[in-house]
Amino acid sequence: MKLQDLGEGGLIRYIRERFGSKAKSLPVGIGDDAAVIDVPAGHSLVYCSDLVAENSHFIRHLHPPESISYKAIAANVSDVAAMGGVAMHFLISIAAPPDLEWKWFEEFFNGVERACRRFDISLVGGDSSSSDRIFVDVSMVGQVPVGRAIRRSGAKVGDIIYVTGQIGGSTLGLERLKSGETSDPAVQRHLYPEPRFRVGPAVADRAHAMIDVSDGLSTDLSHILEESDVCGRIYKDRVPAWSGAEDRHILHGGEEYELIITGPGGLPPEIEGVKITAIGEIFASDARNQLFIVDGAGESILRPQGWAHFQ
Amino acid sequence: MKLQDLGEGGLIRYIRERFGSKAKSLPVGIGDDAAVIDVPAGHSLVYCSDLVAENSHFIRHLHPPESISYKAIAANVSDVAAMGGVAMHFLISIAAPPDLEWKWFEEFFNGVERACRRFDISLVGGDSSSSDRIFVDVSMVGQVPVGRAIRRSGAKVGDIIYVTGQIGGSTLGLERLKSGETSDPAVQRHLYPEPRFRVGPAVADRAHAMIDVSDGLSTDLSHILEESDVCGRIYKDRVPAWSGAEDRHILHGGEEYELIITGPGGLPPEIEGVKITAIGEIFASDARNQLFIVDGAGESILRPQGWAHFQ
Repeated sequence: MKLQDLGEGGLIRYIRERFGSKAKSLPVGIGDDAAVIDVPAGHSLVYCSDLVAENSHFIRHLHPPESISYKAIAANVSDVAAMGGVAMHFLISIAAPPDLEWKWFEEFFNGVERACRRFDISLVGGDSSSSDRIFVDVSMVGQVPVGRAIRRSGAKVGDIIYVTGQIGGSTLGLERLKSGETSDPAVQRHLYPEPRFRVGPAVADRAHAMIDVSDGLSTDLSHILEESDVCGRIYKDRVPAWSGAEDRHILHGGEEYELIITGPGGLPPEIEGVKITAIGEIFASDARNQLFIVDGAGESILRPQGWAHFQ
Repeated sequence: MKLQDLGEGGLIRYIRERFGSKAKSLPVGIGDDAAVIDVPAGHSLVYCSDLVAENSHFIRHLHPPESISYKAIAANVSDVAAMGGVAMHFLISIAAPPDLEWKWFEEFFNGVERACRRFDISLVGGDSSSSDRIFVDVSMVGQVPVGRAIRRSGAKVGDIIYVTGQIGGSTLGLERLKSGETSDPAVQRHLYPEPRFRVGPAVADRAHAMIDVSDGLSTDLSHILEESDVCGRIYKDRVPAWSGAEDRHILHGGEEYELIITGPGGLPPEIEGVKITAIGEIFASDARNQLFIVDGAGESILRPQGWAHFQ
């Protein structure tokens, strides 16, 4: 069976039956012009989106549909966590070819269900269209206590730079996936990342700045430095590396969804079961918000070399 | 100049400079992991998305970029209005080929600015990716007083069916655009629709059910009948038709963004400067939530024949 055999009406009915009743205490869920959501008193809304395009973010014959949806949702959960917030509800807009096998969609929505359970969030709507390429855009709303969102711009001179978990595994996993491996832990890391959705809110009252590693450590940490108008230094041997990952994976690899946190220090070595590692410090400098890396005895400038589209 | 000459960083800087300061009283706007928004006390959040895919919703050489963005935003404003809500902020996720001319983007963002001014809303973030096809997804949040959202499912036996404005112009305009006309009023209607963003909230306390005409009168009114478990009847000669539009445009043409309202009656002939026309009534029946049309002396079943993807 293909998508065109069900049509748009069939697709919407399937989504509604599978996900419609799972969003608890929602005034209006799937199946109206818009969803209606209550934001708890004393909280602001956190709002973001993440787009996944065929041949840019995934290869149809290489990436399981379950991973495509899971990862698009996880990327948003990660963005909300990087603000110190808690993800709540999301929309999926999907464009796909009418002759795409229905099985692809079933597996795609298995990934949606997996993400909903993992992150305690719910699908509340979206849109669909035919297209000769697959596009998926997920937008998400979450909540954060009023005035408590952690920005990229808050890093202060003297701050310690922390990173959660281990990094370098996702790009390494993509390389291994392309070479035909599927069960390697790095491949699983690439396909089913673990955004730090509990760590973000848990460290919010001890963090000055926060961002998630979506484009690469060098690029994302540089965003904090630019927005905060400071310089930073990391020590290469302190960066918690994924086993087997090389410098290009560790320093510049994207889609890690670990958190970079800067703050006054004193974070414990583990929060919510996730390892927290101090990798460097924030300092003032005449140079233009640059990032430095200490490798052995030498210190050099580390330019942002993570992922950028259109180049 | 092409998109790839600016790169993703250049695109984000452009958007931030052009739109970053225009969202008033927003805790966090463009340029962080997520936007942070305050929802006024006593209000729920209205949340929806609308996607636009090249060759499905627009033809690159036919549709001005300004119209593509304007219309994607307008479609969301219309959805929020159809819930009785007021649109506030939106995200744009855009995928595009790296060799697309930068001029295309400037015009695309002219359409964003036009929509922001027209609907008093603001761009607060989004995402971007390279792709060989253009894909645009807009998600929007709005506000509605708690417990006051108007659903598709609220129509009651005895309700009057109203429609705003005139319908049939958008599909007629698309046909004329394809035949080379560009200044025809129907073409302008197709390119720059006028969602009824003031009428929706204004009639919310007098409406039982509401939906916007995005897929076609027959299809969208049928959604109300199905969700409300009722039947409906419209009188063909009462439907306010766009000048020159034929039955297929009027009864089944999409992208009109007029509102279908059902309620106990008594709506004035004009609300917020927009014409309101009674076109039929809701009734109970043994038949399965069908829509009937009275044409002269005869009455027949009007099946949903509006736009559906994947078919």
